[in-house]
Amino acid sequence: MKESALAVGIDLGGTQVRAALVGSDGAVRARAATRTDVVGGPVAVILQMQDLFSQVTDGVEPASLAGVGVSAPGPLDGEAGVILGIPTLPRWVDIPIVAQLHEVLRLPISLENDGVAAALGEWRFGAGRGLRNFVYVTVSTGIGGGVIADGCVLRGRRRLAAYLGHMITAPEGEVCSCGNRGCWEAQASGPALGDLARRRAAQVPGSSLAKLGDAVEARDVIVAAREGDTLALELVAREAELLGIGVVNLLHLYSPEAVVFGGGVSNGFDMLKSGVERQIQERALPPFRAVPILAAQLGPNSGLVGAASLFL
Amino acid sequence: MKESALAVGIDLGGTQVRAALVGSDGAVRARAATRTDVVGGPVAVILQMQDLFSQVTDGVEPASLAGVGVSAPGPLDGEAGVILGIPTLPRWVDIPIVAQLHEVLRLPISLENDGVAAALGEWRFGAGRGLRNFVYVTVSTGIGGGVIADGCVLRGRRRLAAYLGHMITAPEGEVCSCGNRGCWEAQASGPALGDLARRRAAQVPGSSLAKLGDAVEARDVIVAAREGDTLALELVAREAELLGIGVVNLLHLYSPEAVVFGGGVSNGFDMLKSGVERQIQERALPPFRAVPILAAQLGPNSGLVGAASLFL
Repeated sequence: MKESALAVGIDLGGTQVRAALVGSDGAVRARAATRTDVVGGPVAVILQMQDLFSQVTDGVEPASLAGVGVSAPGPLDGEAGVILGIPTLPRWVDIPIVAQLHEVLRLPISLENDGVAAALGEWRFGAGRGLRNFVYVTVSTGIGGGVIADGCVLRGRRRLAAYLGHMITAPEGEVCSCGNRGCWEAQASGPALGDLARRRAAQVPGSSLAKLGDAVEARDVIVAAREGDTLALELVAREAELLGIGVVNLLHLYSPEAVVFGGGVSNGFDMLKSGVERQIQERALPPFRAVPILAAQLGPNSGLVGAASLFL
Repeated sequence: MKESALAVGIDLGGTQVRAALVGSDGAVRARAATRTDVVGGPVAVILQMQDLFSQVTDGVEPASLAGVGVSAPGPLDGEAGVILGIPTLPRWVDIPIVAQLHEVLRLPISLENDGVAAALGEWRFGAGRGLRNFVYVTVSTGIGGGVIADGCVLRGRRRLAAYLGHMITAPEGEVCSCGNRGCWEAQASGPALGDLARRRAAQVPGSSLAKLGDAVEARDVIVAAREGDTLALELVAREAELLGIGVVNLLHLYSPEAVVFGGGVSNGFDMLKSGVERQIQERALPPFRAVPILAAQLGPNSGLVGAASLFL
């Protein structure tokens, strides 16, 4: 009996390079990860990818491997298979990674924006299964994501749709890593919540967050809020409001059947959900108010599974 | 020789009902318009539509008419052919206009959101010709529009994409007709510019706008700016900034090849364009900065031609 099709997903991140062997049912059969060789640059990292590939495909019949999907932070040119530049990895400029990996792995290779890859993973095998329209939002160090519209991935010119995190939600707001002011990412990403928490904690010495001093991060806010800390609950409410304003925009602009949240923030999704929904009730036009806000189902694997799914 | 295909577009507006006979080349062969019978409600207006249809098809061979496209303000259910409700026309609730018009006109009828209809008109026969990705924005009493993404009209759940005007660009901003605060429409529509002009004119007695008192409207600001009035130029710069912030979001979210502006504001497009472009240069990610901002080419006919184009 022929073994069912398998594919490999590789995710290039600023901190880790990860790989997974994925079945046609979306299940992860093997995983491996290593610290990204930032100093070694692209040459070293492609060796790392080759090594991770070998680890996750150990003992696998080569003929059953359909291909390797690579997800990476943008901006990238998915059609040409070239990484144009990665802010967190300075030497990754104009790297033809598809050609380079093909040369060493001798398999079909495809390159996808990491936000879109994760959206694909959740669409095919996670919280977005069966939907013709949905938006995946990842909130962690930044805000990114991908859009499924009318049964297809929304691509746009140069496949550059959709930079959700650089939607301006407060024109005079916080300075963003992109240099602009008031991007959704600058207002509501994990680091933005951490910054606000540090500022507020300095003003509220009684809060459990104040004891952490300058080390306060977004995850600490979620933990303290679970324990009932007043300041932390206030910060969670504010974060939910900032996320909700962006979600209202996504509803009006794409009309999805669901908005799915992934990334680091999904650890606090249960704490944030009602506040996001409140913004929708207060700010969205009536026909959009019934759209559900869901947590991603594949956790840290959304992007790996989505990248592999390009061949499944 | 067989006459080339013709179709009729009918546009239902809060002020006027208009109709046009349109050729397969997009050219308007005949036009007619009348004041919307608001008091008479749907029954009276459908008679008006029938009358306008007769006027624009006078002498036309019935067999050459492919169908009638109707454009109307949302929210509407285009698939079911039902107008769900029109804020400016109170009695238009749950009106099955496609069935009703079919009964009297005995032709295929299709219903389209007016923003999408205008986008279709500009895509097929106007400023968006040949593009696979573009966004049409109409700025007049409100802000609306439509999106062409990857060679198709972006539809979304219940065909409710894309309410561009209800994208929040300033969470604490002006109150919108929808009840929310800081929608793009509340910040940058014609009436929003008029309101700001009246407030500022009261503070700047030397301005030519101050002489108009409470009668100042957006169009007066454009006229005064053309004549070099300092306050009017300041107001035009502010309007361009507010429009530009929304355009930056559209670039990041849809990655269009062009953004096309129509509606009343297009009369001042030449005055506003450079200010919109400045926001793009200052606020958009580098790969989006080269996208052109264009004026609509079909003027007041975009929606009529687009509605007819559903059958061309």
